[in-house]
Amino acid sequence: MRYLDAGVDIERMNLVKKEIARLVRTTKTPGVLSDVGLFGSLFVLPKVKNQVLVASCDGVGTKTLIAKMAARYDTVGIDIVNHSVNDILTLGARPLFFLDYIAHSDLSSTQLTAIVKGLVKACRQNAIALVGGETAMMPDIYRPGEFDLVGFIVGVVERDKIVDPKRLEPGDVAIGIPSNGLHTNGYSLVRKVLFSMHRLSLKSRLKGLKCSLGEELLRPHRSYLKMVYPLLKHIKALAHITGGGFYENIRRLLPEETSCIIKKASWRPLPIFRLIQRLGDVPDEEMYRTFNMGMGMVAFASPERAKRIIRAIPRSRVIGKIVRATFGVVVI
Amino acid sequence: MRYLDAGVDIERMNLVKKEIARLVRTTKTPGVLSDVGLFGSLFVLPKVKNQVLVASCDGVGTKTLIAKMAARYDTVGIDIVNHSVNDILTLGARPLFFLDYIAHSDLSSTQLTAIVKGLVKACRQNAIALVGGETAMMPDIYRPGEFDLVGFIVGVVERDKIVDPKRLEPGDVAIGIPSNGLHTNGYSLVRKVLFSMHRLSLKSRLKGLKCSLGEELLRPHRSYLKMVYPLLKHIKALAHITGGGFYENIRRLLPEETSCIIKKASWRPLPIFRLIQRLGDVPDEEMYRTFNMGMGMVAFASPERAKRIIRAIPRSRVIGKIVRATFGVVVI
Repeated sequence: MRYLDAGVDIERMNLVKKEIARLVRTTKTPGVLSDVGLFGSLFVLPKVKNQVLVASCDGVGTKTLIAKMAARYDTVGIDIVNHSVNDILTLGARPLFFLDYIAHSDLSSTQLTAIVKGLVKACRQNAIALVGGETAMMPDIYRPGEFDLVGFIVGVVERDKIVDPKRLEPGDVAIGIPSNGLHTNGYSLVRKVLFSMHRLSLKSRLKGLKCSLGEELLRPHRSYLKMVYPLLKHIKALAHITGGGFYENIRRLLPEETSCIIKKASWRPLPIFRLIQRLGDVPDEEMYRTFNMGMGMVAFASPERAKRIIRAIPRSRVIGKIVRATFGVVVI
Repeated sequence: MRYLDAGVDIERMNLVKKEIARLVRTTKTPGVLSDVGLFGSLFVLPKVKNQVLVASCDGVGTKTLIAKMAARYDTVGIDIVNHSVNDILTLGARPLFFLDYIAHSDLSSTQLTAIVKGLVKACRQNAIALVGGETAMMPDIYRPGEFDLVGFIVGVVERDKIVDPKRLEPGDVAIGIPSNGLHTNGYSLVRKVLFSMHRLSLKSRLKGLKCSLGEELLRPHRSYLKMVYPLLKHIKALAHITGGGFYENIRRLLPEETSCIIKKASWRPLPIFRLIQRLGDVPDEEMYRTFNMGMGMVAFASPERAKRIIRAIPRSRVIGKIVRATFGVVVI
């Protein structure tokens, strides 16, 4: 018996790896010291004084199920890269390099390559080197046709430029920075409402949406790097509104004795969120605990500095404030 | 409808996260700047001249299926940490920090916590900070009871101490460094032979094994850090014998016009490998292409330096040599 019989086609995998390596090389940045294919990736740090590394790891979640339904694999890679970029941006970091992990039941070479194309596209847009990764075919662990996509990012920030939420104080305002849709969270609820309860199709054209439901659900997570990085000196804290919505993601920033009030009347949620809420009869609190509702990042600043930020970022606006209280986060 | 109804129990997950955070804090090293719970992890680099970062990402593969069969979740975390440590050690790096990703169908809090205990144990043994991670419950992607475990490691090496295989030349010898069992690869073949073809049980006591089959299959991957790191100055190249066995893992090190001959008579494979080969009627070549056969790492050095390495590492020995040829790797 050969390893092939046990369900692992090494030859086919090697071919895919070659094409992936070719794609990955297009993301090379000056820090990259090694070629693809060693046991680890070598990266030379830029000359930065008192540099601090910032690392994060996350998966794209069940958005992969939508990719499978739509048979469209070239967008989720963009999601996980931009999601990761935004996560470390909240600490003031600019990204240096990225590694990916793709595990699946039985994806084709074409599907795997499409996923990597998405990763590469977003890495190039953010000037990040894709320095390594792993692909694993494990049909006994993943359901047929399913896959998981995980990203690891490392960035760098000067020690005295770390965005430190400890400086937040009553009187600071919360500035909502627009998202372009669902981004990368809440898809379990989305699928339940749209497909289990309502049996909609990805091809459905629904009132309020400018594209098909599939296009809306797969629109890639926005990267806030280029927009927010130049404004960091004005910002005291940044929340990336992902799983846990406004409540969980803002709560972890709040110093003791401070709380945050988000006023939902200050912006109109994007149509996709209104649609999900209506079709699923989802309570308001649950919506703001699950989704970004049209604001993918919340920046905190003094009212003075807030004006500059709002001038610089289209459609951003004050959506709440920091107060002296102990209730945590409320959305009213 | 609430998010809970869609299969995601945020409350329960928050409880697990607290216990995990407590465990993770015990791995703190001087570089760790931030507590658990932000969007990214801050890590201050040690003062090293001309430092180069070395990163790697890998999954534990289908060893998780054995963990599930044995209902024993506290060892696979050790596997992925030690596997990752060994990967970057091949480039001369010592590890700094680690992030994990655990995704699953329906693991209990106890099972998740056990996985993290394994990660934490190995991180402490290798003096690595476990600085972050992500846990995702996705029953629509993972088969019932199954999980995947992925690790991301970052280490550091001085630029002029990078272990660079380009220095390999004909006449150098290959030194086998003993493994303690299967480590983290070949489990698809293992399961096919032992459980599909032979219907053995994890409780089986087989001739030649000193423990139950389950204990043998779950024995954690060995870390070579403490043993090999002090000897790096004598070593020209290091191969970590993982998926792809001797062929794939040595081939990628070889400079042009050089090849490697591994002599299988130079050591006796561990009993578990002889057992798998006999029960599965697996050809020799397939065995050496899939498993470590009892040698988990292969170091390359000049014959002079090889003597010192062999004196320092118990049960290590010359198992092959580098020759001027273009056949790549042969095991004869």
